[in-house]
Amino acid sequence: MSTAVSPLAPTHVPELPVINGVKLATAAAGIRYKGRTDVLLALFDKGTTVAGVFTKSKCPSAPVDWCRAKLKKGLARALVVNSGNANAFTGKTGKTATALTAKIAASATGSSADQIFLASTGVIGEPLDATKFNGVLDDLAKKAAPGGWDEAARAIMTTDTFPKLATKTVKLGKARVTINGIAKGAGMIAPDMATMLSFVFTDAPISAAALQALLKDGVADTFNAVTIDGDTSTSDTLLMFATGKTGPRISRISDPRLKAFKAAFRKLLADLAEQVARDGEGARKLVEIVVEGAVSKASARRIAMSIANSPLVKTAIAGEDANWGRVVMAVGKAGEPADRDKLSIWFAGIRVAHKGARDPGYDEAKVSAEMKKPEIYLKVALGLGKGRDRVLTCDLTKEYVAINGDYRS
Amino acid sequence: MSTAVSPLAPTHVPELPVINGVKLATAAAGIRYKGRTDVLLALFDKGTTVAGVFTKSKCPSAPVDWCRAKLKKGLARALVVNSGNANAFTGKTGKTATALTAKIAASATGSSADQIFLASTGVIGEPLDATKFNGVLDDLAKKAAPGGWDEAARAIMTTDTFPKLATKTVKLGKARVTINGIAKGAGMIAPDMATMLSFVFTDAPISAAALQALLKDGVADTFNAVTIDGDTSTSDTLLMFATGKTGPRISRISDPRLKAFKAAFRKLLADLAEQVARDGEGARKLVEIVVEGAVSKASARRIAMSIANSPLVKTAIAGEDANWGRVVMAVGKAGEPADRDKLSIWFAGIRVAHKGARDPGYDEAKVSAEMKKPEIYLKVALGLGKGRDRVLTCDLTKEYVAINGDYRS
Repeated sequence: MSTAVSPLAPTHVPELPVINGVKLATAAAGIRYKGRTDVLLALFDKGTTVAGVFTKSKCPSAPVDWCRAKLKKGLARALVVNSGNANAFTGKTGKTATALTAKIAASATGSSADQIFLASTGVIGEPLDATKFNGVLDDLAKKAAPGGWDEAARAIMTTDTFPKLATKTVKLGKARVTINGIAKGAGMIAPDMATMLSFVFTDAPISAAALQALLKDGVADTFNAVTIDGDTSTSDTLLMFATGKTGPRISRISDPRLKAFKAAFRKLLADLAEQVARDGEGARKLVEIVVEGAVSKASARRIAMSIANSPLVKTAIAGEDANWGRVVMAVGKAGEPADRDKLSIWFAGIRVAHKGARDPGYDEAKVSAEMKKPEIYLKVALGLGKGRDRVLTCDLTKEYVAINGDYRS
Repeated sequence: MSTAVSPLAPTHVPELPVINGVKLATAAAGIRYKGRTDVLLALFDKGTTVAGVFTKSKCPSAPVDWCRAKLKKGLARALVVNSGNANAFTGKTGKTATALTAKIAASATGSSADQIFLASTGVIGEPLDATKFNGVLDDLAKKAAPGGWDEAARAIMTTDTFPKLATKTVKLGKARVTINGIAKGAGMIAPDMATMLSFVFTDAPISAAALQALLKDGVADTFNAVTIDGDTSTSDTLLMFATGKTGPRISRISDPRLKAFKAAFRKLLADLAEQVARDGEGARKLVEIVVEGAVSKASARRIAMSIANSPLVKTAIAGEDANWGRVVMAVGKAGEPADRDKLSIWFAGIRVAHKGARDPGYDEAKVSAEMKKPEIYLKVALGLGKGRDRVLTCDLTKEYVAINGDYRS
């Protein structure tokens, strides 16, 4: 596993405030890693509501199955996350392990197993020995305290090279409420899912139904618009918890008092999603891809994703080569309406191709200088309609291959 | 560009016999490369029929547009192929370049430009200076001779590390006819296309319509079942030429005399397609993926392709790791019907996962030993229906990143 921090890591790590009704604790349970924490327990006061979005994989992990089933009641008392083992494709053993983990957590926290939420990340296919949580969760429940967000974000990391945190304070009616979020990502990040793992917490009193609508709305252009390698994890989970300690009770997403909250929430998700892209396995460049002039936003998204997931585009960017020919290739293979002779392409705001051919005024030296920067902005104009979309990705480097060729062995 | 020959290269390079009615010549025209041939001219006797299949890219190259238009008449007198420049996304210049190349070739060969077929491979987006063919094609037309297949296969290479050739001799009615094929591949090989470039020649008298049907039938489980990186070239072209010198005239694909020819033709395409996979950029392992028990053959194909194109599966194989968890991930993300708890996975014939969990009898040491071999056989059984399919791919190595990160610069 990589130990060096991604060169794209944010220079400033935010200090997350306490959220009334949330207590955190972490432990080193030795699930897989040595000398680091690998379990997070979050405790919630009674009445905390919960919502979630998950991987669209047809082979989801046991914890994803568990959470989906428990979301129906919309109430949460605790969240248990472990890193090192995804408890995915573990058959009946996996199901038993989730039930046992929830039982241990329920007993440790004095709540019902139906209100325990679970997430696991790490190796797929290895049975998770839930008896390792015996004692550990009791200790964590005892020592859980307000704050400790940085430790929480670290405990859920796998191949991540830095912890991912974000916070917003915003008006809800006349009250000021807080939203805190943590995430882990690195590989297997693709659209049609939440993200690898992300947890968002607020002290606002928002009904489970409104939370669910907020999440669905919020992920579309944030977590679902990020791709690292086009692979989709079996474990992707984004859960949101609202303790209801501060501000007016909100039961519908259409409530006008939610306006500022919605905007802040979306920014927080966008921030976390960008941090995930910045920590893509082996990433040396953050790549923003904007497609405009498509026949629809959905078409623009598919073309942007085709570019973002193209190994040839990604390796060219790793090689600091503004190889717009490969961008054309990726547009062409997307299967979406495109007219070669109307296509224009920009790297870093410099138009390199126009109306189906190299831009006559294109200065390769100038573009090459831009390609050496850590952030690459790539724009494609199709000239067909008004559809526009944006996705984030990173380059494909030898380090990606090294990380993923050596991960398990 | 890589200079070492792929470790997966066939140990035996076949000697291709002369095909009555076909003459070949190659030259070093300095289109991009130094010190190597980069132009192939194939001359055909009058009455030669032609058929072709091409990339499904929405942004095809100028030569692909040219060939599609010229195929309608179904007759060919010459084929001009250049490597080093794909003449793709070159706008009006590209179109002009194809017309000029065909004009020069027509004049050199004493035929009509309508019967000249063109293919270009190499960098996208760079204007192709067709005036470079002036003189060169005249010389080639003069020196063209029967044989010279190996030189022909070498002249069309780009990042290929070995020339790709195959031959079959087969009965057509009472006659014995020959089929020769050459191909170039390496990167940007994905389904929904022919291949990068491949040309097949026979002395049999087969109508253009029957040739077209043969090709369509032949590529489905050969060239279209190979993927290197999921990227689709703008230039993929497979052309087939039949000089009609030997055997009975065949006008329909349903002609019973075609039976043996069809089978041999398909084997030849399969052979060339496998050579392309064996020369995948940076490839160190040839990977055969069989999916069975899917709801249909099409569904099995999509799942097999999802596995074959997964960077996480491919890097694991590069790392000689039988990481079947990532295979589960790739099955899950394919979006096709799959039931996690019915899934079984084999590496090299050893069942590593069964009914949604690790196989209890799975001996990791034994599988690890198999993973060190250059050919990896991966089977997935879904347990849902009778759909079965097979695709070929290769691993994803640091060399792939190096080749594609340094290609243009």
